[in-house]
Amino acid sequence: MDDITDVTVTPCSNSRYIKPLRMHYHQFFMALVHTTNNGSKKIWDAMKVHDSVAVLVFNKTRNVFIFVKQFRPAIYLCKSELTKQDSTSDIQHIDSTKYPGQIGITYELCAGIVDKDTGVNVIAQGEVLEECGYQVPLDNLEKVTTYRSGVGTTGSLQTFYYAEVTDKMKVGYGGGVAEEGEMIDVIEVPVADGMKFVMDESINKPVGMIFAIYWFFANKWKLYEKS
Amino acid sequence: MDDITDVTVTPCSNSRYIKPLRMHYHQFFMALVHTTNNGSKKIWDAMKVHDSVAVLVFNKTRNVFIFVKQFRPAIYLCKSELTKQDSTSDIQHIDSTKYPGQIGITYELCAGIVDKDTGVNVIAQGEVLEECGYQVPLDNLEKVTTYRSGVGTTGSLQTFYYAEVTDKMKVGYGGGVAEEGEMIDVIEVPVADGMKFVMDESINKPVGMIFAIYWFFANKWKLYEKS
Repeated sequence: MDDITDVTVTPCSNSRYIKPLRMHYHQFFMALVHTTNNGSKKIWDAMKVHDSVAVLVFNKTRNVFIFVKQFRPAIYLCKSELTKQDSTSDIQHIDSTKYPGQIGITYELCAGIVDKDTGVNVIAQGEVLEECGYQVPLDNLEKVTTYRSGVGTTGSLQTFYYAEVTDKMKVGYGGGVAEEGEMIDVIEVPVADGMKFVMDESINKPVGMIFAIYWFFANKWKLYEKS
Repeated sequence: MDDITDVTVTPCSNSRYIKPLRMHYHQFFMALVHTTNNGSKKIWDAMKVHDSVAVLVFNKTRNVFIFVKQFRPAIYLCKSELTKQDSTSDIQHIDSTKYPGQIGITYELCAGIVDKDTGVNVIAQGEVLEECGYQVPLDNLEKVTTYRSGVGTTGSLQTFYYAEVTDKMKVGYGGGVAEEGEMIDVIEVPVADGMKFVMDESINKPVGMIFAIYWFFANKWKLYEKS
């Protein structure tokens, strides 16, 4: 999965995936001391992206967290160095012997975009099956909360679920949808190692995953320990 | 701050702020059963953005969290409806009477981008002063961890700090840099209300803020309660 070669980077003025929109607006505020309105004409560039779901999957048969591991180009790009091919070309290179694919590997919660008109919980259920291989009943999916991802640029909503699964619900390998180019490894982390895992800075991971583990230990683990 | 009017949205093919890059690469993986290499040529659109800092500011004189409140155009755009001015124009409108600015208001941790070559802690210190009005000594800034913001598109690194402040360190109003167009309100939330506040889904907030509060209660609050 992390065997990445032949890396080039080009400008991309007409991306299908990243479409900036410019919002023009007036923002007024009342000054604290004076009572005059202070109008300010502003612009802000943003982009519309799909809302998403993220799911903390906990296998209670064996007390392990189920995470997904994948190569993320954006993180690889962020952690490597671009070099120009030549002065006349827009094409830049990344030396994949100096910057191995391993630096772009992340560990994340099972997650996906809300691109269908089914319930958000049905989408979460589908991602748990596709990515992790568990057929989780909707009753085992607990909606925890929602928050905004990327307040600066996208502003999209992420709904966070907790899914309790058992070994009996494991019906496949997971791994994502190969036809969509997904290459995902399913990773199991024992509950005792969970906190250390998400606080390990050498591991690329989104902050939502750290929140999920703190939430689990604050709200769930004591219930399992007692039972 | 939330008095937003005259909102239009235009396409933006040449944003100064959102510059997509297209990464071309080969990704190989070993099939589990077969031993053949399976090479896959891929592209991914991403954008380079600055790394950032986020700071949970806790005022121990009065046991309050210090948050920042601001209007976020990306969230406003996400939660409102665009209507075409006419069929020949690219300009779209948002009806600010139907979608008041209030829907784009967020509560966040004090935060900023790493755009100077000083230490990351110095940048965090500067943001606490600019946004919240506290002159916090570097010794009171505790680096907690790092994580990736936006694994799909940006991959940038955010460093999370905890800043313990007192009323004596309050040297200004905060509010951000007016010359840079920042309009920020400083909000105080009593520690007893913190968890309810960040789990309130009617409040727009990033997940990093929820993590910060969970981290505080797991690691810090007991120390203060005892003292």
